[in-house]
This record gives sequence, C-alpha cells and structure tokens, in this order.
Amino acid sequence: MKPIRNAWYVGALSHDVTTTPIQQTVLGEPVALYRTESGQAVALGDRCPHRFAPLHKGKVKGDYLECPYHGLQFEPSGACAFNPHGDGKIPQAAKVRHYPIVERDGIVWIWPGDPQQADESKVIDLSAFFGHGKQLMISGSYKLNAHFEIVLDNLLDLSHAPFLHPTTLADPGGIAHLRFEMKQEGNTVWAYHYVPASLPSAQFKPFRASTEPLCDTHAHMRWDPPCNLQLDVGVTECGRPDSEGLNIHIAHLLTPIDGNRTNYFWLASRDFVMDNEEISTLMQANVNLAFTTEDEPMIEAVAVNMGTPDLMSLKPVLLPGDAAGVRARRILKQLREQEQPPVVAPV
Amino acid sequence: MKPIRNAWYVGALSHDVTTTPIQQTVLGEPVALYRTESGQAVALGDRCPHRFAPLHKGKVKGDYLECPYHGLQFEPSGACAFNPHGDGKIPQAAKVRHYPIVERDGIVWIWPGDPQQADESKVIDLSAFFGHGKQLMISGSYKLNAHFEIVLDNLLDLSHAPFLHPTTLADPGGIAHLRFEMKQEGNTVWAYHYVPASLPSAQFKPFRASTEPLCDTHAHMRWDPPCNLQLDVGVTECGRPDSEGLNIHIAHLLTPIDGNRTNYFWLASRDFVMDNEEISTLMQANVNLAFTTEDEPMIEAVAVNMGTPDLMSLKPVLLPGDAAGVRARRILKQLREQEQPPVVAPV
Amino acid sequence: MKPIRNAWYVGALSHDVTTTPIQQTVLGEPVALYRTESGQAVALGDRCPHRFAPLHKGKVKGDYLECPYHGLQFEPSGACAFNPHGDGKIPQAAKVRHYPIVERDGIVWIWPGDPQQADESKVIDLSAFFGHGKQLMISGSYKLNAHFEIVLDNLLDLSHAPFLHPTTLADPGGIAHLRFEMKQEGNTVWAYHYVPASLPSAQFKPFRASTEPLCDTHAHMRWDPPCNLQLDVGVTECGRPDSEGLNIHIAHLLTPIDGNRTNYFWLASRDFVMDNEEISTLMQANVNLAFTTEDEPMIEAVAVNMGTPDLMSLKPVLLPGDAAGVRARRILKQLREQEQPPVVAPV
Repeated sequence: MKPIRNAWYVGALSHDVTTTPIQQTVLGEPVALYRTESGQAVALGDRCPHRFAPLHKGKVKGDYLECPYHGLQFEPSGACAFNPHGDGKIPQAAKVRHYPIVERDGIVWIWPGDPQQADESKVIDLSAFFGHGKQLMISGSYKLNAHFEIVLDNLLDLSHAPFLHPTTLADPGGIAHLRFEMKQEGNTVWAYHYVPASLPSAQFKPFRASTEPLCDTHAHMRWDPPCNLQLDVGVTECGRPDSEGLNIHIAHLLTPIDGNRTNYFWLASRDFVMDNEEISTLMQANVNLAFTTEDEPMIEAVAVNMGTPDLMSLKPVLLPGDAAGVRARRILKQLREQEQPPVVAPV
Repeated sequence: MKPIRNAWYVGALSHDVTTTPIQQTVLGEPVALYRTESGQAVALGDRCPHRFAPLHKGKVKGDYLECPYHGLQFEPSGACAFNPHGDGKIPQAAKVRHYPIVERDGIVWIWPGDPQQADESKVIDLSAFFGHGKQLMISGSYKLNAHFEIVLDNLLDLSHAPFLHPTTLADPGGIAHLRFEMKQEGNTVWAYHYVPASLPSAQFKPFRASTEPLCDTHAHMRWDPPCNLQLDVGVTECGRPDSEGLNIHIAHLLTPIDGNRTNYFWLASRDFVMDNEEISTLMQANVNLAFTTEDEPMIEAVAVNMGTPDLMSLKPVLLPGDAAGVRARRILKQLREQEQPPVVAPV
Repeated sequence: MKPIRNAWYVGALSHDVTTTPIQQTVLGEPVALYRTESGQAVALGDRCPHRFAPLHKGKVKGDYLECPYHGLQFEPSGACAFNPHGDGKIPQAAKVRHYPIVERDGIVWIWPGDPQQADESKVIDLSAFFGHGKQLMISGSYKLNAHFEIVLDNLLDLSHAPFLHPTTLADPGGIAHLRFEMKQEGNTVWAYHYVPASLPSAQFKPFRASTEPLCDTHAHMRWDPPCNLQLDVGVTECGRPDSEGLNIHIAHLLTPIDGNRTNYFWLASRDFVMDNEEISTLMQANVNLAFTTEDEPMIEAVAVNMGTPDLMSLKPVLLPGDAAGVRARRILKQLREQEQPPVVAPV
C-alpha cells in the first residue's frame, strides 16, 4: 500500500519548530524542520548531498541550515548557499530536497509529493473549528507502531469506547443504547455516534449544570483524506439538541512515518470553563491516560495481529460500526490508484 | 523444519491459567488461555475475527471471553455467543480457533493440530511419576531463544554436566568415570548416565545418611516425542542399586514458540526430606541458578553459532554421548515427514 | 563489497588478550582470542566442531583451550588435543580454524585470509612511530555501527574538525585558512592538512612555551590499506617547520566486524610533557569525549543515511577534502577485485 504523496501532512506542531532543528520522518523520508532566525518554518531533506550527514543536527545561521559535518549551508529553497571549503565554489549538485510548507492554526503542514501540485488552498481549515467562543487548550503527539489506517479504524468506530475506555472516556453501559449513522459526501466521511440517556463520562461530569444523572452523549467524527479527523464530542440534557450542551472539539491528524508507524498529532478545544488552566491540565492528563494505556497498546497489538495494514485482505467479520472506516479505506484505495506512479523525489 | 502439529504440548502450568487470561505462542500461533468462572481451562486463537484484537487482553464473563476492543464474547468452543452491537445478530464467520485441551497433573496441555486427531490418551502420563511417595515440590518455566531440538540435545547428553555445571549439579571430576548407554523402544529414547564412585553434587550432599565421601550417581533421561523428557537423577552408596538412594524426578516439557524460540516448562519432585518447604526453596533456587547462568546462555549461544536448528546439516563431530540426541532428531524427522501437509487451521 | 581477507587486522590490544579468553568478530567470523599459560597469544575459530559452543567461554588449560560445553581441548594449531569422553579417541574432524598471529607494539594482529599467504613482514611497523623520544601514552577501542570505509572517510578528511570538534580538537575558525594536499605513493595515501595562523586547540594550548595567541597547526594522515591510519597532529610557532613544535602521534586501526560494524582501535603518543600520567589521563578523556559525543554519532548517522557503504553509488557531491578518501576507496576497490574469490575457510 504505497502512501498518497500529493497531500498536506502535519510535519510538526508549530511550537516544536524552532531555530533548533528537529527530524521527522514523513512517508519514509527523513525531513529536517527548522525555523529561520526571521521566523519562517522550513522543511528540507535531512541528508546532506556531500557526505549524507543529517542536517537536523546542524545549526541555523540566519535563514540557512549549516551541515554539522563539513559546514555546507543550505537556504530554505534547498540550494547550497555557502561552501566554506577551498575556493568556496558551490557544486551544481549541492542541493537538498525542499518540501512546500504551510504554517497555520499552530500546525506546520508539509507536502511530500510533487511540489508543482502543492496547493495551499487544500490545507484543512481548522481556524473556524478553534474560533467562535472556543479556544485551543491542549495538544500533543504520539508515535505509534501501526499503519495509519489502523489508527483510522480506531477513530472512525467509537463503539469501542465502552469497552476500551470504560472509566476514562465513556459510559461502559452506553453500548446498549448506541445509535450509529454514517454519511459520505465526496471524499469526506462522517461517523455519528449518539448515546441517549447515558451516564456522563469523566470528561464532562464535573462541569454539568444539571443534577440529572443521565444525559445524551454524542460523538461525531469527520474524516477528510488522507489523514485528517475532527471530532465533536459532547453531552446535552436528555432530548435537547447537540448545540446546547458541553462540547469538546478535537482534531486528530495522522502522518505516516512509514508503512508501519504513524505520527499522531492532536489539538483540542472546549466551549466550557474556558481560560481555566487547571481544568486544561486535568483534561490533557485524561487524554494521555486514555491514549497511552488504552488506545495505543490496543492499536499496536492489532497491528501485530494483523501482520498487514490491508484489513480487507484478512476477510474481517464486519459489524455496523465498521461502515465509516471501511468507506474511508475504500476512498484511500481509489486515491492511491489515481495517484500517478511515485514522483521521483525532486531535489 | 516444520513443527509437528498433531501432538499435545504444554500450554501453561495449571496455576498460571486463571480468570485473568494470558497469551502463549504455540508453534507460531498466539493462543489465549483462560479459566472459565466454573473452572474449565480454555484455549482460543488469540485474534478476534472482527478487528483482530488480542482476546487475552479481554475479560472472562462467566464461561465466555470478551474481546477487549469491541466486546464480542466467545464461548469455549470458539463460537461468538454475544454481540453487543446493533441488533445483536451474530455474523456467521464470527468465531475463533478452539484448541483441544487436557488438564492433568498440574499442566494444561493443548493440541495445535487437527482437532479430529486429538486423542486424550496420548497425553504423557505424569501422575505415576509424581505419586508413590514423591511429591511435586517445585516447578517453573523459561523462554529460550533456541529451537527446541537444541534444548533436546542439551538434555539428552548430560555429559555436559561436569563442564557446564561443576559447582551446581555435577562432580567436575565425574567425566573420567562416566558410563553412558542409550536405548530406543518404538519412538521412545532413553539416555542412561552412570558415574560410579563420584563426589555427590550439591543437590544431594547435605541429605545423605552416609559419611562416605564417594557415591554412585545416575541420571536417566527418557524422551517421548516430540518434546517430553523425564529425568531420574539420584545417588546411592557405592555399588548399591539405583532404587535405594536419594532421587529427584524432573519433567522437562518443551513447547516450540516458533522456529527460534522455546517455552521450557519443568516440574520436579524428590523422595527425601519431603514436606520441607525450605529445602524445596533452596532446590528451586539451585535449579534456577544452573539454568539461567549455565544452560540458558550456552543453549542460546549454540543457537547463534549454529545459525540453523538442523544439526546434521552442519556435519558435527559426534561423540558417544550424542547417540540419544541424534536418535531423537532422526525420529522427529520421520514424524515430521509422516505428518500430512500442514492442516489448514480449522476455525 | 566483500572484505579483503588477505591482510593483517588488529584482533585486540595486547593487554586485552589474557588467559581469560575473549571473543572478537573479524570479517564476520567469531574468533576466540586467548593467551596460553606460557604467554603466547592464540586466535581460534570460536565454534566447537562438536556442538558449536563458543570456545571463548571456556577455560585455558596450559596451552590448550577447553570447550565450555563438553570439554574437548584444542591446541594453538586448532587441532583437538584431548577428548575426555568415552575411550578418549580424537575424531579426525575435531579441529577448529587457526588464525595466523603476530604480536607487536602492543597489538595482536590476526590474518583472516589464506594462512599460506600470511607474511609477517607485511604487518605495519609502528615501533619507530612510538619510539624516538615519544611514548605510548593512551589507547582505546570503540565498536561502531558503520562500515569501516565510512570511518576512513571521516579520518582522511579532517576538514570536518572545525564543524564537528569546535571545542575539543579544532579551532572553529580554522576552516577559513585550511590548506589541504594529498599524495599517493603505491597504495599508500597521505592527506595533509595545514592551518596557518590558527588558535591552538584545547589539546595543545596549555603546553605551548610561547604566549603568542596564534600558531600553525598541521594534521597529516597516512593511510595504508586496508585499514591502517597514522596521524601526526601538531602545532608550531607561526612560520616554523612542523618538526619543531608539539606533536601527537596517533594510530587509528580499523577491523571490520562485518559489513555494518567496525572495531576501531587507537594508540597515541606525544613528544611533550612525557611521563606525566595526569596529562595522559586528561588527554584520553578529551579523545573519548570527542569520539563518543562527536565522531561516533555522526559516523553512525551517516551510515544510516547512506544505507550502503558504497559511497560512489550515491553520487555524492565532492569537495576538495574528499580527494584522499576517494583515492583510498578506489585502491580498496582494486584490491578487492584482485583478491581471489573468497578462500574457503581452512579448518
């Protein structure tokens, strides 16, 4: 399953891109990410064309990145701009790959495909999502030993929550009332989960105004290919519309490290007790707990048990909740097939 | 070297099979082992047919094992008995592999081959071995990075003891007097080791009635294919019959994890200072010391040096003590060839 | 890239070869190195021909090495000299590979190729190098996860020093003045590095008589195939000949462990503040710091980034400083091609 190259992927959260370069592996390629002294985020192939040193171990000098081994300096376009050796002439082949970048909403997006096709308008717009009376409160990232489609499966079928997250994120009894719907529009897929008359989960319970023991819970996931998911999860008083209650908004943004590993970035905001740092810290701890002790071990164990990311080749038994994930996999297959044979990496 | 599938292998020691499921890998297959609330040991394929979650991470509910990811419940036969999703209909393909089981003598035996051929009468009978004035005192298990036939080689040729275990299990000078005999009856092989007029080893020395410095030592190993060994080791006064002295009886039961790793289970009883817990604890510590610091590193180093489990392909120099091990390998080769092409795993 | 077998390689530093055997892997072959009780260094194939136990875990008995598993004893020629089993007859095939050895200048050299061609006169002569008013002061060894030619590249182009070693070994500003020359004579290559009017590095600064802030620095590397390098590095007052100032002499001796790993041995002497143990200790710490925190991580990262030891296949951009390393690689290629198809290991 060749990855889709012509797409925007999260390279890093903005606050992790500084004048101290870092390395990220994106679709199997090592990328050096740094910020110029004037503040621009830059992504370059992390392999000097001279002796193949990892550039991310070098120093940022103004706008340039200096190779840590022999001191060649590369500008944001990837061209060598300074050679400290001999007569200083710059060999024609002295350039590294440059990745198109868009920095927006606290995210550095990079385009690992054909630079000619990098269209800034195709970056998922998260600004509205985090505006309008909400605020970015918490964010994080994980490295997972699993193909990103196995992570997609997890996110698009939240019927796992009562079993995998009975104390952290879900009402364990909720499965009896779960109503699931899905919708596809173009290449976008929605998975709607409603649990009427359920116990509020630990995320919401302390913040409800009502003292009624039960509430309606909803969790609506939207997926845009290849790797972007947005979740609205919230509780309302029984019978009231979704728009009324407490809501948390989460972006789950996946970047394939390679065919067996995924960088998982996430951002979350809420529309209640905003500006309360203490609550933000508690919520971040809760997400971390659920992710690192529940989702991560399960996703990685499933990846081992599957032995291949190609779910359908294993002839799985399918349940109603799989509808959205299976649809997403089908769209990804089409997009992979449509994509021209892998672009030769332009240097 | 394909493993022999139609045989009983130790899945686990009985006391390790509880209502908290465990995973064992047997002949390359992950197996979930649990005990129902009514006490029955069960072995199921450790891979849910829905999303391939490892069932051993789930919960026992009555007789059923619940998948930790989406809550399907499987009964001891491997059939799905409960689906908590949607209308609760159980998809026809929702079943997992069931392994025939026999629980006896503190051991849970499982049959990874064709269930039709699983014959309970073929389980090695260890009851007599541990009865008649003896008692099970100690048991344990190790995971070894070596093909089980390399472990067999170690056990069937105890002439290594004076060199590998000079302070723990053997008289280092004993090799000069060692008399070795072997016998084959059907597919059973015996390796007899006699060391007349030897120094008693640390296992026996404190327990002898006699103050004579020398004794006769014997160590008789019986092998039944594919992986079961029973050892009688003991000391007598010089010139007296084996039946008279102090004896320890040990079962060495090997289960291939895969072609490069072995689960090594052992049980031991003795016919002296019985009911003395303190002595049992000391003896267990002595076995652990000898195994983990002497046998295990040697077996694993040999496996690395061999690079293949197929000893004969390396054209080894053979010594007299190899006769039993070579015979066992020959029998295993015949049994492998006789076994029909690998049974398609029945689900 | 098959290794060159018909050459002397460092097996170990003399002081590491004792009556407690050690294992070294040389060109992919495990070798047991020991010293007989009469003081002779011996190198044998580290794999008993009986059950393939690693002989280096055994005991030295007089001149012989006893197998730790079943007690066969091997003499320095590799022949089995004692069999403790049965009638004691020694099977004809009971021998291990013997490696020709030369011990000289604190080094145990071994010859992994055709023993008929092992010519003691071809051992690099380091005696003169460490005599004449110098003294061996420090030595050490490292295991590197990189093909030895990637280590060669590092050593033959010291223009990396101002970038990789700006505080430990070099004047970071020195690159602006670096003058590089190379010379080939037969199969020997010299790389000359001159840095006139440079700041003295931390190695020399405290020991200069002069109070002038600047000095001339030189670093002359000599390579003899396949794996031997000798470096003269020193400082003089500006404009004075190399012979006048402070000098350190270092031998860098590389032994391929296999195609991806290298044993790196080094010895160093100096011609100033001789007989000062404290200074020797400080210098050793400085070398260790530069190597383990600067060179080693860079060389290993480059090996990962290259993915192959075959530099030229990656079409590197070449700079002036690469001339010596490229020449060495070319000579190695010729020597590899000249060497007859791999000698069948004589046992």
